Amino acid sequence: MISNRRFAIYRDNIIQKEGERERERERERETMESSSNPPTQIMIGVNQSSLRGYPHPSISSRTAFEWTVQKIVRSNAAGFKFLFLHVQIPDEDGFDDMDSIFASPDDFKRMNQKEKIRGLDLLQYFVECAHQFGIQCEAWIKKGDPKEVICQEVKRLQPDMLVVGSRGLGPFQRVFVGTVSEFCAKHAECPVITIKRKADEAPQDPIDD
Amino acid sequence: MISNRRFAIYRDNIIQKEGERERERERERETMESSSNPPTQIMIGVNQSSLRGYPHPSISSRTAFEWTVQKIVRSNAAGFKFLFLHVQIPDEDGFDDMDSIFASPDDFKRMNQKEKIRGLDLLQYFVECAHQFGIQCEAWIKKGDPKEVICQEVKRLQPDMLVVGSRGLGPFQRVFVGTVSEFCAKHAECPVITIKRKADEAPQDPIDD
Repeated sequence: MISNRRFAIYRDNIIQKEGERERERERERETMESSSNPPTQIMIGVNQSSLRGYPHPSISSRTAFEWTVQKIVRSNAAGFKFLFLHVQIPDEDGFDDMDSIFASPDDFKRMNQKEKIRGLDLLQYFVECAHQFGIQCEAWIKKGDPKEVICQEVKRLQPDMLVVGSRGLGPFQRVFVGTVSEFCAKHAECPVITIKRKADEAPQDPIDD
Repeated sequence: MISNRRFAIYRDNIIQKEGERERERERERETMESSSNPPTQIMIGVNQSSLRGYPHPSISSRTAFEWTVQKIVRSNAAGFKFLFLHVQIPDEDGFDDMDSIFASPDDFKRMNQKEKIRGLDLLQYFVECAHQFGIQCEAWIKKGDPKEVICQEVKRLQPDMLVVGSRGLGPFQRVFVGTVSEFCAKHAECPVITIKRKADEAPQDPIDD
């Protein structure tokens, strides 16, 4: 039989050890998500809806974003950083390349309405979505041929992976439309994952988005 | 000035509220990883080293597994389930198709040494790796043409994504060797991510693995 005093010491030891173990587990978890293990950087190519224009994202961009949050990030927001890249095809309006980077919803508010650049609403949409999930992000616009610019930006920034949406066109449609996703999957210098939009969300003409 | 008694009540309220908040956060985390949100199922195609044979995994299989753990699973082991599929090309030894599923290291120990099937060591290697990281998994062997069987199994099991390793062969080598990864990326009915092995790990002849 053990005395009350010995029992109290024994119990306190157990409690102390439990506490130590819990702190150890906490440290382990922190180490796994600490600066020595930087977040997984996921570049996501986004574009506007061809039917509805700015600021509406295309169905395939939205699907790619949602899939990445649900299937990869899950509850581990601190483990990931999103890099949203929107590539605009240059037109005769004299649109200038711009290199501003947007990382929080406030960055958009600071801009004068007049200064607002075509496509900025689209970035704002995705930056706000990411912030809702607590995922840190950066977003920027480039001009050029989307498939080539995406591959250049992958080379420059070396993300851990690239996510691109796809309209899932058949071989006949592809000949005329071309697919950015297929080119990137072949040429981008990082692992690439192509997310097809859901069949029930596709517009009547699959080329539209 | 507040009395000692009122202060004690005030303090206890704070502690209680902190506790409630912590429990709430805990519940939230649990909900995000609960049965209503099943783990992300990742199918990983694995094969043996062509140079060293069984039980050694190919460099590209190992690279694909390690990349998935480091970049996707990270510290969130409970959020994922791995499905290891090894497809063997049938030979004249009369190897029979077998449908046993292995989900823990013990499942291998239970088999009689005589019953051991070609390729089982390979599955054991990956199941043990997954268990070390606390990731639940299943593993099985099929025979047939790897690229076609992988696509059939994706259709049957509908994983959230498929990860395949690639030797990263150039276009000239590809003509003669063919790549499973390229076929799967095109035909598998789920998002596919191809992981190239690191250049510094490639054997002298890149066709070897």
